[in-house]
Amino acid sequence: MASIFSRIIAGEIPCYKVAENEHFFAFLDINPLAEGHTLVVPKHEIDYLFDLEDKMLGEMMIFAKQVAIAIKAAFPCAKVGVAVIGLEVNHAHIHLVPLNGVYDLDFKRDKLQLSKERFAEIASTLCDLILKQ
Amino acid sequence: MASIFSRIIAGEIPCYKVAENEHFFAFLDINPLAEGHTLVVPKHEIDYLFDLEDKMLGEMMIFAKQVAIAIKAAFPCAKVGVAVIGLEVNHAHIHLVPLNGVYDLDFKRDKLQLSKERFAEIASTLCDLILKQ
Repeated sequence: MASIFSRIIAGEIPCYKVAENEHFFAFLDINPLAEGHTLVVPKHEIDYLFDLEDKMLGEMMIFAKQVAIAIKAAFPCAKVGVAVIGLEVNHAHIHLVPLNGVYDLDFKRDKLQLSKERFAEIASTLCDLILKQ
Repeated sequence: MASIFSRIIAGEIPCYKVAENEHFFAFLDINPLAEGHTLVVPKHEIDYLFDLEDKMLGEMMIFAKQVAIAIKAAFPCAKVGVAVIGLEVNHAHIHLVPLNGVYDLDFKRDKLQLSKERFAEIASTLCDLILKQ
């Protein structure tokens, strides 16, 4: 069965899309640790990040960088943090999260509750910033 | 002033080295979340991971993959997780941590206390596994 992320990429499940190219797809985490929290996934469904072949792994990180630059521009922060855990959805994904404190990447923290309008606004802002790069 | 990681790379501060190539260096975190917890850093001192130019960023992730493969072989786990926070040491570094549970990448957890002998043994095991790849 296709992963939930493959179904999002295929448009079967809605998402707040941030960026896309031939191989990768970025969309807002709907349980965000902070405004701008984005997931970057390979379109080819693979469970474990380090099972990606070298070239794709490198390209995925470069794609994530483009997204991270937009996040930092839209949501001023000390840095955009990176987390890859991958024990809940078996489709490799990189979390990109604006950080201002050492524990801002703590997934036990309460997630933000945002309105659909706010999610859409954030995604639109990030999209525009990425297109301008 | 050189970062603590630059001083480690230069050999001015001891570490438990795991791997090294022209551009990157990997060594055990001395406050590990789990046995095998390793830091990957670029030799060129740069504060923020996403300030690395694309080629170096991609290569750093590929280098990290080699280390992660060794960690998973030495410390059976569901996956090797990735975290980049970077608010305490101003020299970009990727944490690689063996994960079995969703919260194993939680930096608030108590760190392991390992003996010098155990750190040396772990580093030696990982070194050997990487050399054999």
